[in-house]
Amino acid sequence: MQSAPSQAAPLTPAVVFENVQAFQRTFALKAAIELDIFRAVGEGPGDLASIARHAKASERGTRILCDFLVVSGLLEKVDGRYRHSPTSAAFLDPKSPSCIASIVKFLTLPDVRQSYECLADVVRNGRTAMPGQGTVEPENPIWVEFAQSMAPMMAPLAGPLGSIALQGRNGPMRVLDIACGHGLFGIEIAKQNPQAHVTGLDWAPVLRVALENAQKAGVRERYDMLPGSAFEVDFGGPYDTILLTNFLHHFNADTCVELLKKVRSSLKPDGCAATLEFVPNEDRVSPPLPAAFAMTMLATTEWGDAYTYSELSDMHRRAGFGEVTCHPVPLSPHTVVLAKAGK
Amino acid sequence: MQSAPSQAAPLTPAVVFENVQAFQRTFALKAAIELDIFRAVGEGPGDLASIARHAKASERGTRILCDFLVVSGLLEKVDGRYRHSPTSAAFLDPKSPSCIASIVKFLTLPDVRQSYECLADVVRNGRTAMPGQGTVEPENPIWVEFAQSMAPMMAPLAGPLGSIALQGRNGPMRVLDIACGHGLFGIEIAKQNPQAHVTGLDWAPVLRVALENAQKAGVRERYDMLPGSAFEVDFGGPYDTILLTNFLHHFNADTCVELLKKVRSSLKPDGCAATLEFVPNEDRVSPPLPAAFAMTMLATTEWGDAYTYSELSDMHRRAGFGEVTCHPVPLSPHTVVLAKAGK
Repeated sequence: MQSAPSQAAPLTPAVVFENVQAFQRTFALKAAIELDIFRAVGEGPGDLASIARHAKASERGTRILCDFLVVSGLLEKVDGRYRHSPTSAAFLDPKSPSCIASIVKFLTLPDVRQSYECLADVVRNGRTAMPGQGTVEPENPIWVEFAQSMAPMMAPLAGPLGSIALQGRNGPMRVLDIACGHGLFGIEIAKQNPQAHVTGLDWAPVLRVALENAQKAGVRERYDMLPGSAFEVDFGGPYDTILLTNFLHHFNADTCVELLKKVRSSLKPDGCAATLEFVPNEDRVSPPLPAAFAMTMLATTEWGDAYTYSELSDMHRRAGFGEVTCHPVPLSPHTVVLAKAGK
Repeated sequence: MQSAPSQAAPLTPAVVFENVQAFQRTFALKAAIELDIFRAVGEGPGDLASIARHAKASERGTRILCDFLVVSGLLEKVDGRYRHSPTSAAFLDPKSPSCIASIVKFLTLPDVRQSYECLADVVRNGRTAMPGQGTVEPENPIWVEFAQSMAPMMAPLAGPLGSIALQGRNGPMRVLDIACGHGLFGIEIAKQNPQAHVTGLDWAPVLRVALENAQKAGVRERYDMLPGSAFEVDFGGPYDTILLTNFLHHFNADTCVELLKKVRSSLKPDGCAATLEFVPNEDRVSPPLPAAFAMTMLATTEWGDAYTYSELSDMHRRAGFGEVTCHPVPLSPHTVVLAKAGK
């Protein structure tokens, strides 16, 4: 008799069930933020009654919600009391300077979510179910919400991006921040180099958010505004550095190349472009966050994507740039692609 | 000088971002099932062009969707081609006898999801945003969808439940299957014991699904129907075994005790009740699936819950049952609680 074949690990449908039910996680976290649960956990003794009181919510609802947050890795529970995990203390307690709870506002906007309700059609058609160009339709007001809500998540990237983009440059310089949104990236360069002069480009209502942030950072007198579309306004220049942060992913490769040509022609011969992007590996399925970001682009744009480094590098070369280098930002899903204007 | 404190693992907000975006996973899997992606992957060479052709979908959309499924652990990608993981082959390919793809229909019904759109209010009020008793409102038509869509996920539980409930009993016996839904649990007992006579109790439109399944299983002549509410109809009896599968979690403890009293009074002195439930540990936050199930009960019922074993045991004792024992079903998130009618 032959021996029995070696047994494979037992199969269960758990991962399928978890994926089907995953939407619950989004809404549980959103509800917890709205109910100020993370402040209650940080401030109080962590028992159910005090959290429910702070949230002005039922004990049944609060208990089930908090237990669900523990299962989701967003709180801890010890001896029946809830307490922060290191992650929730840092990123979800409103008292933490690194709190990013506001991102839930932008990322669950009805406009942002509508394509998912008919995602099979979106996949069939290969484009967002939103009208026109989707989120990048001219003057789309969601970018004001983006500038306000997403800034805390982008803030930790500003320092690394600034260092990579500046490459130690001192002295007077001009910087253009295309689709600047909250403005934090250009503002950071103005902070790192006290002689840098920054021009923020975005829709006028968005620029008001950037200007407010420039004021707070004490660099308002070195911050100019260029309202309009990156594809239509005259950039002016020439600039030493042009920032393209979280922007190229909204467009197809040919559109990116056209924009990069315009960027290059607005740079000094020794200037450079610094692009911040979600850059998945060439397999397009790792690391998880940059790879998954392509889905957001499918659902919200006509042609956008999470481009690989070889694709981004190729776009820059087609636009006439010289040396292109890749700088992953540690502890983040983002990568900076730096491209020199000259050969 | 003191030495620097030992460094903690670097913190990132990745888990927060993943939870905010988790809704994408639900809709990606739903779209993939609607587009028949898992059949295409199982049948074809796994290249993008052939999958897109099978799905009658754009290559851009298909590529982004399939990559997203890989990131979500629902497909594999090797050398640019998509292929089944052992899990997707078993549970998502429609050619597999254990395919559970249909569960996405029930679990993403607009009725089932509506409470999540206002989950903070649900937590405040401590009950579903659905009118009346939520999903257990009399004659709620979603239970027909449940009986049809969820049967494949419940089918693997029928064998273990049947063995535990029968405890080796042979010979003539009468079985009542309360809120039988698809009917698979009672039908299994009729299959394991050729002298068992089963009565399925549920709303009349749901019983038509159970009856169809009894017919398919060849036990139709030993299967009776008792249409109506478990709280209102006369159970008849006495029975040797009464099944309460995935039912108690919809109600509060007092209602469960009342129902269990009615169950006990319909059992023979040596009969027993077999309850199938999601039973979390006493900490209520593990294991993940049974613990997370409480959220579904918050969102869809007035008073339901994922009860711990000590709570279920207590309910049975308050209803007058004798010995109560706990039987976790291997490789599933379910547990069978077996209770003897007599002391």
